[in-house]
Amino acid sequence: MSDRDRKSRFKGPKPGGRGGDRDRERHGERPGKHQGRPPWRDREAKGHVKGEGPVILYGWHSVTMALANPQRRIRKLFVTENVARRLADEKIDTRVPPELVHAADIDRRLGPDAVHQGLLAEADPLPGLHLDELPQDGIVLVLDQITDPHNVGAILRSAAAFAVKAIVTTGRHSPEATGVLAKSASGALELVPIVEVPNLHRALGEMNEAGFLTVGLDSEGQGDLSVVPLHAPLALVLGAEGKGLRQLTRETCAVVARMDMPGAIKSLNVSNAAALALYIGTSRLGLMG
Amino acid sequence: MSDRDRKSRFKGPKPGGRGGDRDRERHGERPGKHQGRPPWRDREAKGHVKGEGPVILYGWHSVTMALANPQRRIRKLFVTENVARRLADEKIDTRVPPELVHAADIDRRLGPDAVHQGLLAEADPLPGLHLDELPQDGIVLVLDQITDPHNVGAILRSAAAFAVKAIVTTGRHSPEATGVLAKSASGALELVPIVEVPNLHRALGEMNEAGFLTVGLDSEGQGDLSVVPLHAPLALVLGAEGKGLRQLTRETCAVVARMDMPGAIKSLNVSNAAALALYIGTSRLGLMG
Repeated sequence: MSDRDRKSRFKGPKPGGRGGDRDRERHGERPGKHQGRPPWRDREAKGHVKGEGPVILYGWHSVTMALANPQRRIRKLFVTENVARRLADEKIDTRVPPELVHAADIDRRLGPDAVHQGLLAEADPLPGLHLDELPQDGIVLVLDQITDPHNVGAILRSAAAFAVKAIVTTGRHSPEATGVLAKSASGALELVPIVEVPNLHRALGEMNEAGFLTVGLDSEGQGDLSVVPLHAPLALVLGAEGKGLRQLTRETCAVVARMDMPGAIKSLNVSNAAALALYIGTSRLGLMG
Repeated sequence: MSDRDRKSRFKGPKPGGRGGDRDRERHGERPGKHQGRPPWRDREAKGHVKGEGPVILYGWHSVTMALANPQRRIRKLFVTENVARRLADEKIDTRVPPELVHAADIDRRLGPDAVHQGLLAEADPLPGLHLDELPQDGIVLVLDQITDPHNVGAILRSAAAFAVKAIVTTGRHSPEATGVLAKSASGALELVPIVEVPNLHRALGEMNEAGFLTVGLDSEGQGDLSVVPLHAPLALVLGAEGKGLRQLTRETCAVVARMDMPGAIKSLNVSNAAALALYIGTSRLGLMG
């Protein structure tokens, strides 16, 4: 297969990464002038809503975990020759015939910051969970308009590490399960069920009625999460970086708790706060395993 | 002042953010063709080493914390009219006369992903601490070739939250204290002393001799950090995402500990791991305040 063949076959929507076309546009360049531009911008301009297209997954963990997930439908798999050998050596079922590409082809598609490790898959989004399907034990994480894909990905990874039962998130404001998020999640996207809700206030109300202890985290909370009474099923509710919990979210939580720390800065990066809250919640509920 | 005046006065090195010129270069465009290109690339090409130029700080917390830090020399301060009013309202000493710019001018300089909130400062790097100046109590964080500026920034922020005494880092591989790192650190860059060492193995050896308990964190560690004996001064040593602790680093640590978690994924994002290790270390040493 010649390089040209590879390139012409390797087109498709671009994940929501940083830089790339968006930068060029901000710098006043006409997107149409860019050579090899993928067709995603035109599709967006025609009013296609996000989420319709395939999910782009890249990186060893993200892709191999997706291949191992029977719920994940794989459409296409692009790999370098080295990766193809490794997949064969490790006897990984690729589900679809892998198409060989150069690493530079994946670079071109993802932009320069994506550590793709020589593999990229196009897949269907995973089916979501419904709110009334939430398990009635353990811990659920609730994300109130947290949108940064690096943060959401890191939170998913911690959620999988602490055996969180599900993540409830405000669908409209949360990122698509794009490559950046999936890469940051390091495979956790395949492990943690996601519940997308249109109205978080209402969802928290339903969770209260269903027996969840809903605990919002806020540096102005009444009690320390290490001390306030906790019971399962527990829902830990986190707000966005900078903004924190929205007023209605805060009011609907049964408890608003803080995490006391001795230093001069009183708030953590939201994914760090999530990891800490999960550690405290998991320890205190005796779920450390 | 006209827009043109503002633009012509507003040039300088570009922080190490994502996207921008680097993207264009990867896409085969000639950098010289880019209109309004800042002069940083030429300076690098002439062999200027990184770290010589000013540090770029942006965002409300990063810049106002820098203005409040007497150790930080401010060279220039660019602000929007709204920010100028807010600085005056809050009676913040700007140290140098702020120069008024449009938000779009800062956008152009930082690229589209930087949430600069209308202020940007050029400043000198902070003076570092020497290894033999480390306080002989509390907790020190040691970073073994952790380079991603978002992660290092988030770690700095957690370090400030847990009143960490200093961060020891491998100078050659760590990022400059650029805007991305400083923004992620949310002001913590002004609070946590940084020790840059050329050889981490040797530095850890000196710390062992100086009485520090050096504890490397690794998912294959012998004991759980919640259980292994700890004492102050404590050095928590973290390795890079994916690679973990280097062999020599691991061998030089007095203890290699893991953090047990009940889920299917056994490792966290490195800044999440740092936050968790700091919480456990701080709690167990009775330093929670």
